[in-house]
Amino acid sequence: MTDDRLARQMAFIMELDKLKSVLRRTTLMDQSRQENSAEHSWHLGLMAMLLAEHADEPVDVAKVVKMVLVHDVVEIDAGDTFCYDANGVLDQVEREERAATRLFGLLPAEQAMELRSLWEEFDARESAEARFATALDHLQPVLNNFHSGGGTWVAHGITLEQVQTRMAPLAESSTSLAAYAGEIVAEALARGYVKA
Amino acid sequence: MTDDRLARQMAFIMELDKLKSVLRRTTLMDQSRQENSAEHSWHLGLMAMLLAEHADEPVDVAKVVKMVLVHDVVEIDAGDTFCYDANGVLDQVEREERAATRLFGLLPAEQAMELRSLWEEFDARESAEARFATALDHLQPVLNNFHSGGGTWVAHGITLEQVQTRMAPLAESSTSLAAYAGEIVAEALARGYVKA
Repeated sequence: MTDDRLARQMAFIMELDKLKSVLRRTTLMDQSRQENSAEHSWHLGLMAMLLAEHADEPVDVAKVVKMVLVHDVVEIDAGDTFCYDANGVLDQVEREERAATRLFGLLPAEQAMELRSLWEEFDARESAEARFATALDHLQPVLNNFHSGGGTWVAHGITLEQVQTRMAPLAESSTSLAAYAGEIVAEALARGYVKA
Repeated sequence: MTDDRLARQMAFIMELDKLKSVLRRTTLMDQSRQENSAEHSWHLGLMAMLLAEHADEPVDVAKVVKMVLVHDVVEIDAGDTFCYDANGVLDQVEREERAATRLFGLLPAEQAMELRSLWEEFDARESAEARFATALDHLQPVLNNFHSGGGTWVAHGITLEQVQTRMAPLAESSTSLAAYAGEIVAEALARGYVKA
């Protein structure tokens, strides 16, 4: 094709199509099917645009948007690891490192580095942007679970303590979103969606 | 919930879930199913991040990313209009205007205005960002059709002329992406994916 640089960019862009087939445990709110990681990432992108004012520290919104768009790309090779699967998380780091090397390696070197940096920054949760992106990533399934009659919480017999552990990163980034999620989880307990 | 502003933002964010069920004519590259407008928008977001250097005029990448994330939201009410459906496009503007009023109207006023502006700017194709976003929006289905054995081109007996008309906006934004798409379309013709 036209030139090698564009060919490499396009090879990666075509590989991205596969993330649309990586299924998460969470269903859509209408319970019609499981959510995939590509549409989940799109949802987080718009949440970042709309909710950035709720971050306790100022965040670079454009960077958060890019970070959430790229945060699950490694799942094309590594698959989605269910957050309440204690065994799955054991080798998650190794699987995702290998995936990052192959997938981002399709790109021209400096773009590979840029995307890998965004993904590593997300994973490290050390910057304000990464903490906020993580807060959104943990908040969105709460919305989907709650508004689909308990969703994966009910399906997998998840306890209040497990949900609260999963919600902990919200308080590290956004007092108001943590409070909002806390109210939802309290109501989920009242409705029997999560076990005491 | 916590406060009215956050409640309005969340009402919109939950409504967004429905875009995951709006199906396009295009299938995934593996032909397993039709693509939905949410995952399509995510794909364009990453394409914008990676291909911005190919825009003939400089573009604000962060703005293009936001624009493509929001460009199909009106389809939640208005549905996806197949680009080769001459009847469907007749009342598309009216249907999408109504959808924009209801959907963006869920948000706090200044965020409603911000998102509606992004969508209107995209639709008007007058800024460099809107022209580039449109180029990506028209390029991505070419990739999916070509790499799924002809896809909607074959299924709907689309002609070379129809595809070339649909590709025209690429040349208004990116000489190199237009050339790249031109090569794909020529090969599609050679393979019989599009009719002469």
